[in-house]
Amino acid sequence: MENLLKGKKGIIFGALDEKSMAWKIAEKAHEQGAIFTLSNTPVALRFGQLDELAKKTGSEIIPADATKVSDIQNVFEKSMDILGGKVDFVLHSIGMSLNVRKKIPYPELNYDYYVKTLDISAISFHKVLQVAFKLDAINEWGSVVALSYIAAQRTLFRYNDMADAKALLESIARSFGYIYGRERKVRVNTISQSPTMTTAGSGVAGIDALMDFTERMSPLGNADAKDLADFTVTLFSDLTRKITMQNLFHDGGFASMGMSKRAMLQYKQSFENNCEDCE
Amino acid sequence: MENLLKGKKGIIFGALDEKSMAWKIAEKAHEQGAIFTLSNTPVALRFGQLDELAKKTGSEIIPADATKVSDIQNVFEKSMDILGGKVDFVLHSIGMSLNVRKKIPYPELNYDYYVKTLDISAISFHKVLQVAFKLDAINEWGSVVALSYIAAQRTLFRYNDMADAKALLESIARSFGYIYGRERKVRVNTISQSPTMTTAGSGVAGIDALMDFTERMSPLGNADAKDLADFTVTLFSDLTRKITMQNLFHDGGFASMGMSKRAMLQYKQSFENNCEDCE
Amino acid sequence: MENLLKGKKGIIFGALDEKSMAWKIAEKAHEQGAIFTLSNTPVALRFGQLDELAKKTGSEIIPADATKVSDIQNVFEKSMDILGGKVDFVLHSIGMSLNVRKKIPYPELNYDYYVKTLDISAISFHKVLQVAFKLDAINEWGSVVALSYIAAQRTLFRYNDMADAKALLESIARSFGYIYGRERKVRVNTISQSPTMTTAGSGVAGIDALMDFTERMSPLGNADAKDLADFTVTLFSDLTRKITMQNLFHDGGFASMGMSKRAMLQYKQSFENNCEDCE
Amino acid sequence: MENLLKGKKGIIFGALDEKSMAWKIAEKAHEQGAIFTLSNTPVALRFGQLDELAKKTGSEIIPADATKVSDIQNVFEKSMDILGGKVDFVLHSIGMSLNVRKKIPYPELNYDYYVKTLDISAISFHKVLQVAFKLDAINEWGSVVALSYIAAQRTLFRYNDMADAKALLESIARSFGYIYGRERKVRVNTISQSPTMTTAGSGVAGIDALMDFTERMSPLGNADAKDLADFTVTLFSDLTRKITMQNLFHDGGFASMGMSKRAMLQYKQSFENNCEDCE
Repeated sequence: MENLLKGKKGIIFGALDEKSMAWKIAEKAHEQGAIFTLSNTPVALRFGQLDELAKKTGSEIIPADATKVSDIQNVFEKSMDILGGKVDFVLHSIGMSLNVRKKIPYPELNYDYYVKTLDISAISFHKVLQVAFKLDAINEWGSVVALSYIAAQRTLFRYNDMADAKALLESIARSFGYIYGRERKVRVNTISQSPTMTTAGSGVAGIDALMDFTERMSPLGNADAKDLADFTVTLFSDLTRKITMQNLFHDGGFASMGMSKRAMLQYKQSFENNCEDCE
Repeated sequence: MENLLKGKKGIIFGALDEKSMAWKIAEKAHEQGAIFTLSNTPVALRFGQLDELAKKTGSEIIPADATKVSDIQNVFEKSMDILGGKVDFVLHSIGMSLNVRKKIPYPELNYDYYVKTLDISAISFHKVLQVAFKLDAINEWGSVVALSYIAAQRTLFRYNDMADAKALLESIARSFGYIYGRERKVRVNTISQSPTMTTAGSGVAGIDALMDFTERMSPLGNADAKDLADFTVTLFSDLTRKITMQNLFHDGGFASMGMSKRAMLQYKQSFENNCEDCE
Repeated sequence: MENLLKGKKGIIFGALDEKSMAWKIAEKAHEQGAIFTLSNTPVALRFGQLDELAKKTGSEIIPADATKVSDIQNVFEKSMDILGGKVDFVLHSIGMSLNVRKKIPYPELNYDYYVKTLDISAISFHKVLQVAFKLDAINEWGSVVALSYIAAQRTLFRYNDMADAKALLESIARSFGYIYGRERKVRVNTISQSPTMTTAGSGVAGIDALMDFTERMSPLGNADAKDLADFTVTLFSDLTRKITMQNLFHDGGFASMGMSKRAMLQYKQSFENNCEDCE
Repeated sequence: MENLLKGKKGIIFGALDEKSMAWKIAEKAHEQGAIFTLSNTPVALRFGQLDELAKKTGSEIIPADATKVSDIQNVFEKSMDILGGKVDFVLHSIGMSLNVRKKIPYPELNYDYYVKTLDISAISFHKVLQVAFKLDAINEWGSVVALSYIAAQRTLFRYNDMADAKALLESIARSFGYIYGRERKVRVNTISQSPTMTTAGSGVAGIDALMDFTERMSPLGNADAKDLADFTVTLFSDLTRKITMQNLFHDGGFASMGMSKRAMLQYKQSFENNCEDCE
C-alpha cells in the first residue's frame, strides 16, 4: 500500500460506469488514500452507475453540466464544503461530439454541433480552471489533469472533430497551466491515452481494428484504463510537482513508433490471401 | 522573374493595408504571375486601403464575413466567375480576439468572446475549406495556406486566447488536410510566422519588447511580411506538391532556439544597471 | 521555366545513379539555372553513373570520402575554383550503415560499425559545415540541406542504427544552423522525405511493404525523388531565406497521420482470409 | 512513507557528490524501499564522495568506465550477485564533453573529442542496454531512465556538442525502447530536466544567467535535483508501466513556454538603464 494520496482531496469529473477511465482513476485514488467528490451530467447520472462508485469510495455526487459555469461553481463550492477545504487535484474526463454521433463526416460538419463539441470537450476545461482559480479552490502544488488523445497531433480516420477538440484542450492546458503555475503553483497537464474500450469508446465505428493496430504497434501494448489510473495518481501525488503544461503520452510506446514488426507482419498478411477459394 | 505562379488563380482573405501579411503575399503572387480575388470584412474594407491593392494587382474585391458560410460561398462562386474557373490557391489570414482587445486576462475570459475568437480565427478556416470542398472549387494539386503563430505550441505572456485559436487552426489544417488530400489532391498547411509588425500586431501591448527578444534569439532575425510573401508563393507553386498537413516555421530559426548569445547578452545587461542615479 | 536558381552555384554530395535523390535534385537545379559540382566516394564513382549526370548538367566531379576533413576541404576549394567563387547551396545526401548491411540487429550492434554509421551519415554533415565555415565558402543567404527520415522521431522496424544517425544529423543541422545563421546568414535545414525507392533504399528488407503502408497512410501518397527535387530547389532559392534549423516533412502528409481510411481498409483485410486452401 | 519501490532492485550510474542528480535519486530510491548498486568511473570515485552515499544507502560501489562493454558487463553481473537476482530499474546519468571543457567552439569541434562526447554521453546508454539485454538482467516491467536536456530539441548558446549527444541519447532511448519493450516488457525513457546546479553543471560558463532566465520563464520555477528524484522514483515504480520511448519534460513548464511575464519584465529592464553615470 503506497498511500500516495494520503490526505489529498479532489474532484473527479466524468465517471460513468466501471469501464470509464475516470471510474478506474477514482478507485485508484481511493485506494491511495484520497477523498473526493464525483461529478457528471444529470443524464449520465441517470444512465450510469455512479451511485455504486460513490458508495464504494465514500464519495458524494454533485451533478453538473460542465459547459455551465454556474454548475461548475456549485461543484467546487459543494466539494470544498464536503471535503472540508480546498482540493488538491481535479480530473477532467469529458468529451462528446454530436457530429461523431450523427455520423456527419468532417468535410460536412454541422457548425452548431462543432461549437458544442468544442464547448463540452475543451472549453469546459477552461471553465473548470477559471472557476477554480476565481474561487481559489485548489491548494498550492495542486494538480489538474485532463484526458486527451493522440488525434490532437495526428489525424485518425473517423475521429472527426474530436481531434480538433483535443488539440484545443491541450492548448488550454498550456495556456492556463502558465497562469495557474505562476500565480498559485498549481500544475495542469493532459494525458494522451491509448484508445480505450470504454462505453463511450465502444460506440466509435472501427475502434476494434484501430485498437488491434495500436496494440501491435506499441511495444508494451495498449495502455488500459487500469494502467491509466496508476499513472494518474502519480500525477496527483507530490512526487511530480514540477511537471506542468505537458501532454504526457501513456500509450505503451505508440506515439514514438513509425512501424513495428508485429504490425507489419499483420499488414503484409493482407496481401497474401488472394486465392479464389477464399471467403 | 521566376513566374512561379503563372496561370494560377487564387483567393486571398485578410489583406487590410500595406503592412498586412496578406497584402504582401498578394503583391508577390501578382508579381509571380497569379490572378486572384481579395476578400475582407465590410468593416475592414471601409477602414483599410484594399482598393489600392486591388487596382495594383488587377483584382476584384468580394466582401465577406468569414464566419458566415453564405458569405464564403459567395466569395468562391464570384471568384470562379471572375477568374474563369476553379482556383489553385487560397490564403487565410484572419484572426481577432475581443478578449485581447478588451484586455480581459486569460483566467477571466468572457466565453462569448472566446467562442467568437475561435470562430473568427480558426473555425472560419474550416468554413472556407468546407465551402471550397462542397463547391469543388479548388483544382487538383491546389494549395491552401493559413497563417499561424508559435503560441499554438508555446505559451506567450499576453497572447491570451489567440494561442488556443491558433492551436485549433493548426488542428483544422491537419484534419481537413487529410480529407482534402485524399479526395482531391489538395494540400493544406499553416505557416508559423515570426511576430510581425502589422496594423493588427502593433496594437498588441508589449510587442516591441517581444520582437526585440525574438530578433536576438533568431540567428537570421525575425522574418518580416516580405519574407513571408516569398515563402508563401513557394507553397502555392507546383514545387511543393507533396507537403501537406504541416505547420511550417518561418521565423529565422526562433522555433529551434533555446537561448542565443545575443539574447543572453541583452538579458544579462538587465542585472548590471543598478546605479542610483539611473532613471 | 522558373529559373529559380539563376546565377546560383552549389555542391551536391551523394548522387549515385538516376534513382538517387541527389541525382534528381541535380537535374532540377540544373534546369533551374544553377551550376554546381558533384561529389561522391571513389567507390561510388566506380559503380555509379555519375559521369552521365556530370555531362548532362555540365558539372565536374570531385571525389571525396565525406568522413575525411581533407577530402571535403578539397571539394570546397576545387568547387570555388571551378565555379568562380563561393557557393550558394550545398546538398548532403549521404548515409550508410554496416550494421544494416550485415543484418546485425539493434540490440546486438557492433560498436565500430555504429560509430562508422554516425560518422558517415551524420558527423560528415558537421564536417561539411565546419570546412565551409572555416573557408568562408558559402555566400551570405546561402542554403544547406541534408536529407533525413522520420525514423529520427519514430522508431521503424529494421531501420536500425540509421534512426540514431538521422536524429544526430537533424541535431547537427540545428546546432550548426544557429552558428552559421548568426555569423554568416547561411541557413541549414533537413528534409524528412518519404521512403524512396533508390538503389540504396531498395536494399532495405521489407521496404516494399513499408512503402505500401506509407502510400496508403499519406493523403497525397509518398513523395518520390522528383517531388523532392522540386521542393529542394525552393529551399536553395532566395524565396526561403528565413527558414533555418528546421526539419521539413516532405511526405504527402504521412508525418501528421495517425490512421487513414485506405491503410485501415487494407489492414483489416489481413483478418479476413483464413481459409485453409490459401497459400 | 510511500514505499513505492519496496522490493525493487536497481543500478544507478553517475552519482558523484551530494549535488549530483543521481545522488538525490539514489537517496530517494533508498527512502522508497529500493536496494541498488552504484557505479561511476574510477576517477569519479577518487574525487567524489560516493563512499558516503554507499554507506548511507547500504549500497555497494562497482567502478566502471561506461564506454567499455566489459566494464558494464561486470557491473550487471556483480549487481545481480549482490542484489540477489535481476534488477528492476537502471539510471543513466552520464555525460561529458571535452570540447566543452576545452572551450572549443561548435564550428571548430575536435572530432576525436566529438566522438568521445557521443560515446560517453549517449552510446554508453546503448551499451548499458545491450549488456542488460544480452544478460537478460532486467525483470519484466523493469524501467530504464536516462537524463537528458532540452538542448536535444532547441539550441542553447554554449551547450555545444552536448546538444547533439542528448539528441542521440533520446534516439537510443526510442530505438532500444522499442526492442526492449517488445521482447521483455522493459520500458526506456529519458527525463529532460531543468538546468541543474550540479558540480558538473556549475562548470558551464554562464549557467547562472541561463538558470535565472529559465527560472523566470517557468511558471513553477526550475526543477531541482530533489524534485527530479521524486519524479524519477515514479518512473521506476509499477505505476508507470505503460510509458515508454518518451522524453518527459520535468522543468517547471519551461518547455511549453514562449515568453513569460517575469522573464519579459527582467528583459525589458536591460533597455532602461542607459544613463551615462552608470558603470
